[in-house]
Amino acid sequence: MSGDATPIPELIGRKRDGGELSGDELRGLLDRYLADLMDDAQMAALLMAGVIRGFTRDEAIVLTEAFIASGERVDLAGLRGPTVDKHSTGGVGDTTTFVVAPLLAAAGCQVAKLSGRGLGHTGGTIDKLEAIPGVRTDLTIDEVRAQVERVGLAVASATADLVPADKRLYALRDVTATVPSPALIAASVMSKKIAGGASTIMLDVKAGDGAFSPRVEDAVALAELCVGIGTAHGRRTAALVTDMSQPLGDAVGNALEVAAAIEVLQGAGSMRLRDVSLALAAGTLELLGRGGDEALEEVTALLDGGAALERFGDLVVAQGGDRRVIEAPRDVLPVAPVIRDWAPASGIVHAIACRRIGEIAGMLGAGRQRAADVIDPAVGLEIHVRVGDVVAADGRCAGRPAVRIHAADEASADHAAEALAQAVVTGSAAADIVPLVHRRIGFDDLP
Amino acid sequence: MSGDATPIPELIGRKRDGGELSGDELRGLLDRYLADLMDDAQMAALLMAGVIRGFTRDEAIVLTEAFIASGERVDLAGLRGPTVDKHSTGGVGDTTTFVVAPLLAAAGCQVAKLSGRGLGHTGGTIDKLEAIPGVRTDLTIDEVRAQVERVGLAVASATADLVPADKRLYALRDVTATVPSPALIAASVMSKKIAGGASTIMLDVKAGDGAFSPRVEDAVALAELCVGIGTAHGRRTAALVTDMSQPLGDAVGNALEVAAAIEVLQGAGSMRLRDVSLALAAGTLELLGRGGDEALEEVTALLDGGAALERFGDLVVAQGGDRRVIEAPRDVLPVAPVIRDWAPASGIVHAIACRRIGEIAGMLGAGRQRAADVIDPAVGLEIHVRVGDVVAADGRCAGRPAVRIHAADEASADHAAEALAQAVVTGSAAADIVPLVHRRIGFDDLP
Repeated sequence: MSGDATPIPELIGRKRDGGELSGDELRGLLDRYLADLMDDAQMAALLMAGVIRGFTRDEAIVLTEAFIASGERVDLAGLRGPTVDKHSTGGVGDTTTFVVAPLLAAAGCQVAKLSGRGLGHTGGTIDKLEAIPGVRTDLTIDEVRAQVERVGLAVASATADLVPADKRLYALRDVTATVPSPALIAASVMSKKIAGGASTIMLDVKAGDGAFSPRVEDAVALAELCVGIGTAHGRRTAALVTDMSQPLGDAVGNALEVAAAIEVLQGAGSMRLRDVSLALAAGTLELLGRGGDEALEEVTALLDGGAALERFGDLVVAQGGDRRVIEAPRDVLPVAPVIRDWAPASGIVHAIACRRIGEIAGMLGAGRQRAADVIDPAVGLEIHVRVGDVVAADGRCAGRPAVRIHAADEASADHAAEALAQAVVTGSAAADIVPLVHRRIGFDDLP
Repeated sequence: MSGDATPIPELIGRKRDGGELSGDELRGLLDRYLADLMDDAQMAALLMAGVIRGFTRDEAIVLTEAFIASGERVDLAGLRGPTVDKHSTGGVGDTTTFVVAPLLAAAGCQVAKLSGRGLGHTGGTIDKLEAIPGVRTDLTIDEVRAQVERVGLAVASATADLVPADKRLYALRDVTATVPSPALIAASVMSKKIAGGASTIMLDVKAGDGAFSPRVEDAVALAELCVGIGTAHGRRTAALVTDMSQPLGDAVGNALEVAAAIEVLQGAGSMRLRDVSLALAAGTLELLGRGGDEALEEVTALLDGGAALERFGDLVVAQGGDRRVIEAPRDVLPVAPVIRDWAPASGIVHAIACRRIGEIAGMLGAGRQRAADVIDPAVGLEIHVRVGDVVAADGRCAGRPAVRIHAADEASADHAAEALAQAVVTGSAAADIVPLVHRRIGFDDLP
């Protein structure tokens, strides 16, 4: 490591002044940090300089490599079909994994998805899956492999041995306000995907008020960065940039989101969640060379024919849960003690403040602020309106209540109802409709 | 502290995004940091955000107040004459304190100067003073006051009780590359001056390659910030922005600089060091309402009449040193074992790379990189040329060797001579001469 010779403050100073670090220098800094030869304060200063000045694409690639090198890798070689993974950058009411993973398994792919719990207004994929009674997610790497071999898919929590550098750095970033860097986010996401072993990686990068990138162009840049890193590591990688200016599915909250995903797998439910999931699954098949329009037809048939729903049932059973959840989710999943309908003034829905909706779900107890917080799986919001929908004078939309609050107690429900009044805005003029899929990244370069 | 309620990462994030923190918020953060409720990594991230995005003038004032509040204050009330302090932002061959402090004492001022050792190519004022055998600088606050009462001046090392917040923060800034912020520098300087108790503060802010601010406009901005902070705290404060594009005095190194200052006090020595010292002393009297041109005449007479030299002798004796140093400095001060003359190619001196000269003195052993390093008081450089001077074919300038190296051994002297070849540049065309005093700040608003 030739970077070792340069004093740490000098390297931090270079980044502070807008300069670039060489691969050896950046690798050397990370190595020294992981060996406790560079302290948290120095790393925090470097990260803040990088967040403000920007890390280059080359720096992001080096960070990704250093993250991967810090831990174990999952070996998926030798499985029957193509190994695939998907990742969404996160949003509100985003449950695509529970639709896309079984859909791809039904299409013959091997899906080993390692997810995090994460901090946020609602839980991560793992927390949502654990809302199904009995389901365990703490599979070992060997168990993941064995389960994928047997039923085609597994959804497990990322072990501490996978990319520990990212884990340590994320804890530091979280308390030092150094999370929002495209390069750091891309390195964090892609290191886990690459260490996860899949040869094909499909990304869903969100744009809008409820996402890391409110602006579409920023989401496109993040997507291009991620695709570039994946490709540089020899993985077939592509991304869709999709809308997060309003909640994606009909539900925000852990058990509620599982139920909403099952509805889509049953051929009903939110059209937005269904359409994004189909686009992601079709995009993955396209990456595998299985055509454009045909891929969409194939996954649509697998969804509508019930094959994906069965695969989801296989997943639940393999991980210890009750298969009946795929037929009657509301019978199996936990139910909140207080359920109350709410509606905005009648009219055309102009805005559903996405981030605010997430915060309201968080206030109800659906998420965690700190790693030690306990999530209430039952609480959250069902949101049966979308921008452009008409809310009738009786507070219903297409026969359903506009919003249904699921709360732990009456006071929380009051609080949520009050907050919703600012979050869901109706009017008399026509509403602007934002497209669901903004951009497709990485498909043009396919061989 | 109403700022206490807001989570620390949210406040750091505001600064990261270019926002401003309220007085309560910034004070709250510093209070939490000093109470160990905010960790070094969070403070480092905040400082880096502030260094890159800039702290406002109001934020600098709040920082200064919080620094002062963290420790003791020196009470100089009740002394016979006006209490004054001066501070230079530091440079190469800058020994103005040893000329200005006795000059002001001779003019009837009470000068209690608390200085630091500092890190750098050469020692701080305290290190230089300690080059005189026997002199002690670790006076208590009571001893400082008593000595000023008796002989009109004292130069002591700042105790740990004075502005401990600045001390703690500086140690963090030093390792995290977050030193170069005008607001942080101004708060650091001014908190110590204000806590030091003087009612009149004269600043010498350097501009040029050897200073914190290479560009004059940046030095002017720093000077205006410092003067604003001092004035906001009810101190008569003004600043000169002076040239540091070449070494100020004839010497760089601890004992050598003391000798160079004594030469000026004897009415000889470097004209640049003499002129800046006279301007600073006259500016101080002007701040005290003692006229413009008359002030310069007064201090010139005090210098040329030997009164300032006597006061320097009083200072040395009061602090335990040998008074003979003011008559024959080279007999009393430590002498390096290897003394060697060096000269550039003959011609007109075009540049004396100021920072590089400092680094060469540092290589010879005149400074410290870490707090634990030991300074060699004897080593350094005498530089008897200035930009625009003519070096003759025999390597002399006005009868003296262009440069004289004082080294601990032959190898160090070789090394220094080699480095000097790049640092002192001669040519045949006329050289650009930079003015010695660029700007006067804070004099226009005098009552």
